[in-house]
Amino acid sequence: MHKAVILTIGDELLIGQTIDTNSAWMGSELNKLGVHIEEKIAIQDTKEGIVSGIDRAMSKGDIILITGGLGPTKDDITKEVIADHFGMDMIFNKPTWERIEALFARWGRSTTPAHRDQCYMPDQAKILENKMGTAPGMLFEVDGKVLISMPGVPYEMKYIMEHSVLPMIKENFTNQSIIHHTILTAGEGESRIAAQIDDIVNQFPKHISIAYLPNLGTVKLRLTAKGSNEEELRNEVKKYGIQIENILGDLVYGHDNESLASVIGKIALEKKLKIGTAESCTGGLVASKLVTVSGASAYFEGSIVTYSYRLKETILNVNPQTLITYGAVSEETVIEMVTGTINHLGVDVAVAISGIAGPGGGTEDKPVGTVWIACGNKTKTVTLRIQAGKDRQKNIEYASNYAMNVLRKFLQAQ
Amino acid sequence: MHKAVILTIGDELLIGQTIDTNSAWMGSELNKLGVHIEEKIAIQDTKEGIVSGIDRAMSKGDIILITGGLGPTKDDITKEVIADHFGMDMIFNKPTWERIEALFARWGRSTTPAHRDQCYMPDQAKILENKMGTAPGMLFEVDGKVLISMPGVPYEMKYIMEHSVLPMIKENFTNQSIIHHTILTAGEGESRIAAQIDDIVNQFPKHISIAYLPNLGTVKLRLTAKGSNEEELRNEVKKYGIQIENILGDLVYGHDNESLASVIGKIALEKKLKIGTAESCTGGLVASKLVTVSGASAYFEGSIVTYSYRLKETILNVNPQTLITYGAVSEETVIEMVTGTINHLGVDVAVAISGIAGPGGGTEDKPVGTVWIACGNKTKTVTLRIQAGKDRQKNIEYASNYAMNVLRKFLQAQ
Repeated sequence: MHKAVILTIGDELLIGQTIDTNSAWMGSELNKLGVHIEEKIAIQDTKEGIVSGIDRAMSKGDIILITGGLGPTKDDITKEVIADHFGMDMIFNKPTWERIEALFARWGRSTTPAHRDQCYMPDQAKILENKMGTAPGMLFEVDGKVLISMPGVPYEMKYIMEHSVLPMIKENFTNQSIIHHTILTAGEGESRIAAQIDDIVNQFPKHISIAYLPNLGTVKLRLTAKGSNEEELRNEVKKYGIQIENILGDLVYGHDNESLASVIGKIALEKKLKIGTAESCTGGLVASKLVTVSGASAYFEGSIVTYSYRLKETILNVNPQTLITYGAVSEETVIEMVTGTINHLGVDVAVAISGIAGPGGGTEDKPVGTVWIACGNKTKTVTLRIQAGKDRQKNIEYASNYAMNVLRKFLQAQ
Repeated sequence: MHKAVILTIGDELLIGQTIDTNSAWMGSELNKLGVHIEEKIAIQDTKEGIVSGIDRAMSKGDIILITGGLGPTKDDITKEVIADHFGMDMIFNKPTWERIEALFARWGRSTTPAHRDQCYMPDQAKILENKMGTAPGMLFEVDGKVLISMPGVPYEMKYIMEHSVLPMIKENFTNQSIIHHTILTAGEGESRIAAQIDDIVNQFPKHISIAYLPNLGTVKLRLTAKGSNEEELRNEVKKYGIQIENILGDLVYGHDNESLASVIGKIALEKKLKIGTAESCTGGLVASKLVTVSGASAYFEGSIVTYSYRLKETILNVNPQTLITYGAVSEETVIEMVTGTINHLGVDVAVAISGIAGPGGGTEDKPVGTVWIACGNKTKTVTLRIQAGKDRQKNIEYASNYAMNVLRKFLQAQ
């Protein structure tokens, strides 16, 4: 089985100024092809850092994917270091220069001297086309291993991966199969889920494993099987998956790459229900998650974010007396928000969220993290109170996940 | 200067099922204390993977921070591997067990056998309290180096870092200073910004460097200075920062940990302006970014997400004739959306966004990625057309960043 190592270059990754989403995407794509990802290393953009990282990667993998340090600016030294480390010369790559000139002509802009410098490449590099930016990718064959260097800009890296790297890997590296099957749950914690399915997990043969991936109100259960017969592995994993789902019941909302948003979309489409949201503490986050699904316009009408008391009254028609008596964060208020949303947006089903995201605004009765959720149609409304923690962003995310899950279950019950 | 290595354990990180935000946060916190982050390594949760990662980390750093693999479930083997690798015994830790029992009693839930297993720790571990979950952190002193193991759940890791690890590092590791100063820009690309400030960057002394961090409509310029005299470094970096900002003008929206949302909040508060948004393709994302700022309720009133044509007419009062003649994604429509939002929400300033996020819906005139933005008050409206790419999520993010920037500049001009 072939092994890959992903090397990401840039101090911004080490000091946490940039969240590394590139390597997650790369890992996921390699994994789909049955390439085993041995390690990911994030290194400094110094000569020593890059050399040490490359040496480690070459000792661990057959396929080394490197991102970062190819931009037009002074801090980008990756290709010089590679050339130097493997004893290659830097030569001017005319096709790249012509491509950059054409690109800028089309944009009606002029190139800078830095763009010309960008066209010098190690002489043993095979150029990988990048239609999304100026720096192309480069492929090197060294000591029987394949080393690929790409820009760190996510959509440029993805372009090169999709058009050059992944097809090359698919063609040249055949592999043992790895099958993943992920069961997505919402509404219960990791330990409690693990306890419920313990008997099944104990029966797993050695080549099947499970991982629990909790995240603010949701837990993913990832089953992994390794072996040579892909179909057999799929059947085995499927069998255990069904056993697990039978026990977990409606905690399970979907599989693999589904999301609460995509599952909600599927049900709403199927049942021909138009949906909308009324949001206070989540500030539109639930709506923005719903529209991550391509084609959401078929069932998602819109949303009212009423962050102020005033708008809860004037737009959603929440009774001022309700707000005075019970407060904006109360079961009574979210129920009226649902009714107001159904009327104002003309939707079939609405979900409403009101909570105290913090860090201020908590009371003894309703500490920071208190969130009320309601979901309903014209005849029926369900409610849920959750108690999140003290961190503002985490509370908002937690509330939005729970609200999505309440909406999902309400739609399923229609 | 002390060096840290961050080791993250878990196949979910390697195969990209989880985006690693933990190590970014840890890197940022260590960096603030002047600890140099030498490397980050993501490894498999196998014995060989963990041992190889720890060996590499011990060879590179004085402080090794490890996350992951401490949960109550079967896939968590970190502490057993550490004990085995360094020749320690596993012993039952009674205080941890008592804490877990008390925690579950308070929640009105019962513990599972897995929770009891979780209380076995290597005998040389110094226990680091975790009030956010069941698995405590552990500190080991090995070969003159400090090795710390923490759970991978973000808020548990953060609790242990904030309450135990960071104070310990602050006390025991004094360091050379690293100063960062980040200039935040929006509305122009990396190369063009680099070309504008090239003369200044060429004058930088050797201990000062610059990095360009582009992200969908924004570019961060991070200046880094290293040396012993912190105040001198600050002054130097400040001097170059001012020179750069003088050239870049209103491309610059803020510094360091500011965000477009926090800057918008600051200006709106200062000018006593109430703001709202009208969103189509961004589906509430701009509003949800505005409420990431604690205290946003002082200036953010709310938002109308009109994903359907119908709601653009019924709620935002967009003329049906405008939609027919120019389409939902047009300058005319977003201008009417601004007026509708000001009237409907009773705000002073509104920003409206309508675009084709894709992958479907593009035409020759308006390909996927076409976005119209308008921002205005009762007397004046500015508009901007942008052309993003083909990726749905990226287009939505790009549109939201540009909309925030248009709002920021409009508020500044009031």
